[in-house]
Amino acid sequence: MKKLSRRSFLLNTGLAVTASTAAVAVPSLLLSNADSKYTGKRLNIALCGLGRYASILADGFQDAEYCKLAGIITGTPSKAEAWKKQYDIPDKNIYNYQNFDNIKNNKDIDLVYIVLPNSMHKEYTIRAAKAGKHIICEKPMALNAADCEEMIEACKNAGVQLAIGYRLHYEPYNLEMKRLGQEKVFGQVRLIEASLGYRTFDPNEWRLKKAMSGGGPLMNVGIYCLQSSRYVSGEEPLSVTAQFGPVTDKQLFAEVEASIMWQLNFPSGLVSNCTSTYNCNVDRFFASADDGQFELSPGISYGPFKGRTSNGELHFPDINQQAAQMDGISKLLLENKPLPSHITGEEGLKDMKVIDAIYKAAATGEKIMIV
Amino acid sequence: MKKLSRRSFLLNTGLAVTASTAAVAVPSLLLSNADSKYTGKRLNIALCGLGRYASILADGFQDAEYCKLAGIITGTPSKAEAWKKQYDIPDKNIYNYQNFDNIKNNKDIDLVYIVLPNSMHKEYTIRAAKAGKHIICEKPMALNAADCEEMIEACKNAGVQLAIGYRLHYEPYNLEMKRLGQEKVFGQVRLIEASLGYRTFDPNEWRLKKAMSGGGPLMNVGIYCLQSSRYVSGEEPLSVTAQFGPVTDKQLFAEVEASIMWQLNFPSGLVSNCTSTYNCNVDRFFASADDGQFELSPGISYGPFKGRTSNGELHFPDINQQAAQMDGISKLLLENKPLPSHITGEEGLKDMKVIDAIYKAAATGEKIMIV
Repeated sequence: MKKLSRRSFLLNTGLAVTASTAAVAVPSLLLSNADSKYTGKRLNIALCGLGRYASILADGFQDAEYCKLAGIITGTPSKAEAWKKQYDIPDKNIYNYQNFDNIKNNKDIDLVYIVLPNSMHKEYTIRAAKAGKHIICEKPMALNAADCEEMIEACKNAGVQLAIGYRLHYEPYNLEMKRLGQEKVFGQVRLIEASLGYRTFDPNEWRLKKAMSGGGPLMNVGIYCLQSSRYVSGEEPLSVTAQFGPVTDKQLFAEVEASIMWQLNFPSGLVSNCTSTYNCNVDRFFASADDGQFELSPGISYGPFKGRTSNGELHFPDINQQAAQMDGISKLLLENKPLPSHITGEEGLKDMKVIDAIYKAAATGEKIMIV
Repeated sequence: MKKLSRRSFLLNTGLAVTASTAAVAVPSLLLSNADSKYTGKRLNIALCGLGRYASILADGFQDAEYCKLAGIITGTPSKAEAWKKQYDIPDKNIYNYQNFDNIKNNKDIDLVYIVLPNSMHKEYTIRAAKAGKHIICEKPMALNAADCEEMIEACKNAGVQLAIGYRLHYEPYNLEMKRLGQEKVFGQVRLIEASLGYRTFDPNEWRLKKAMSGGGPLMNVGIYCLQSSRYVSGEEPLSVTAQFGPVTDKQLFAEVEASIMWQLNFPSGLVSNCTSTYNCNVDRFFASADDGQFELSPGISYGPFKGRTSNGELHFPDINQQAAQMDGISKLLLENKPLPSHITGEEGLKDMKVIDAIYKAAATGEKIMIV
């Protein structure tokens, strides 16, 4: 299935009908403007850090209509030059890490999207907040829960809003999983299995350096398995057990885990058994409830996704997740509305507390209570 | 998909072509006699214990051609009467638990298939062996590894063969998983996820009484997740961690676990993360290897199954697993050949050693080495 731009999706009646007849809350942004394209002010976003995911976000801007790529922050002059040409970015909206704080005087930047290595999330979130800019910070929010609390405090003090880059909150298949779970469409959910992983090869990648990443696949992709366990159940886990997989490559995995499994215990008695790995490709979500099952496979990555329930196959449009996420956040900020709690810094903090507990459980072999 | 008798499957050219063009070792029994039905001597089997699964086996005999239902052993006179009428069983081939040992004088019984509660497997295997009969003993082989060793010794001393009721070794989709894993068709397998469970309701069921069952879903259905992890990898696990799920119903789960998860570590670095539960329906097998993935869902129960690999969907005939298993064993015994090692008592013992370790790991919270 080809990935559709939002415009082509809206023109594709077949898909639009599929989405509207299905009982899912497809982001209203994606369906509300079939006849009229938004022509008002766009939120001006500066991308901070120009790595692999920044390029994916830049691609997302092509499908967005409530925001635009207005600026960049990078420590690499050659990247600044290349992005300036490719995306027509004015010199006055280009920063490096030394002059970044001057962005407070730039009225043409409304929001800074932080796409730096995890270890830099805290510093740049706090600096962007002090500059009076709204912030989207990529997941994981920081290296640990204590850092998250500092970031939330800084944004609160500065009067800016902080979102975490949880793209799946804007993705129709995942929204349907959330609805099926929280509305107990198949009754109480008893078991969740969620796994996400891919193979990694480059020993120089920052994600394999603990000082920069804070950890391995759990920090990077496992966080989505944790997220889906929480938002499908609508519950917060009480305790967790966890196990590191073996060090399958001593050079690659000298500093962070190669794989990790963990088991979350929720108040209702629901158990979620999750895996994240840098050893192989896996991308699946499954939930079993009293009266039926629902699942996605693939379903946690960038798509396209496939889903089914005990009642049959699911069919939703394959959207650009990055565009949907940035538009959803931008629309609210343009309207001076508060962001929904499930994408804010407080949500990032909740995940980080569980991640801290998962690592402690794996390191000690003990069941760790989550407080 | 309707379940096919073997004969209708053989007459169904479409399915037969599907099976023969796919690269799987469909049991030769199922494909070799398309033109000629076997008319030689059949192995005479007596079912020992007439519970729910005995009825499923009785149904399997309808599709079998190398064996027949020749006798029964039951402690309930009304069941003896009902089965005698329904299956035309002569009085001389009907036993109760008191006169069972007289079966040694009955030349019309070649094999005793033990379908009793787990706690009775050891006693009746040893008594059948002393009566000079071959034996199929349902899984799990016994309550613990020590009992398995006694059973193997008894059969060895009596010169009879002992098979364990691992039906999936005769099922085409599972044979394909085994081939894909062991032949490394997609490279080294790195991660296996296998889950099997169903909802249980009757607090009086023997499976919920620890003295009779030895344990909960792990003993009953989780053993298939363990089996598939072992036969797909072709390796023996080195160690295991495990976690009991919560007691979700105090009446039902007063004696055995409601659910259990466990993680097996194999010599190659493969990790297998498994779940078995009496809380909800789940039936899925997944393997991710260096160059691709393969999976079944459903794929561990009685079928029909669905499977796919990174190369596309799998299509094999939906067979009667019980008929295929009993025929496979019977044909070899009729030919005075040894049973393959992957279905013998030694295999049951290997599983039971791992199960003992899983329960120990769950009870202690420690990683248990498997010796």
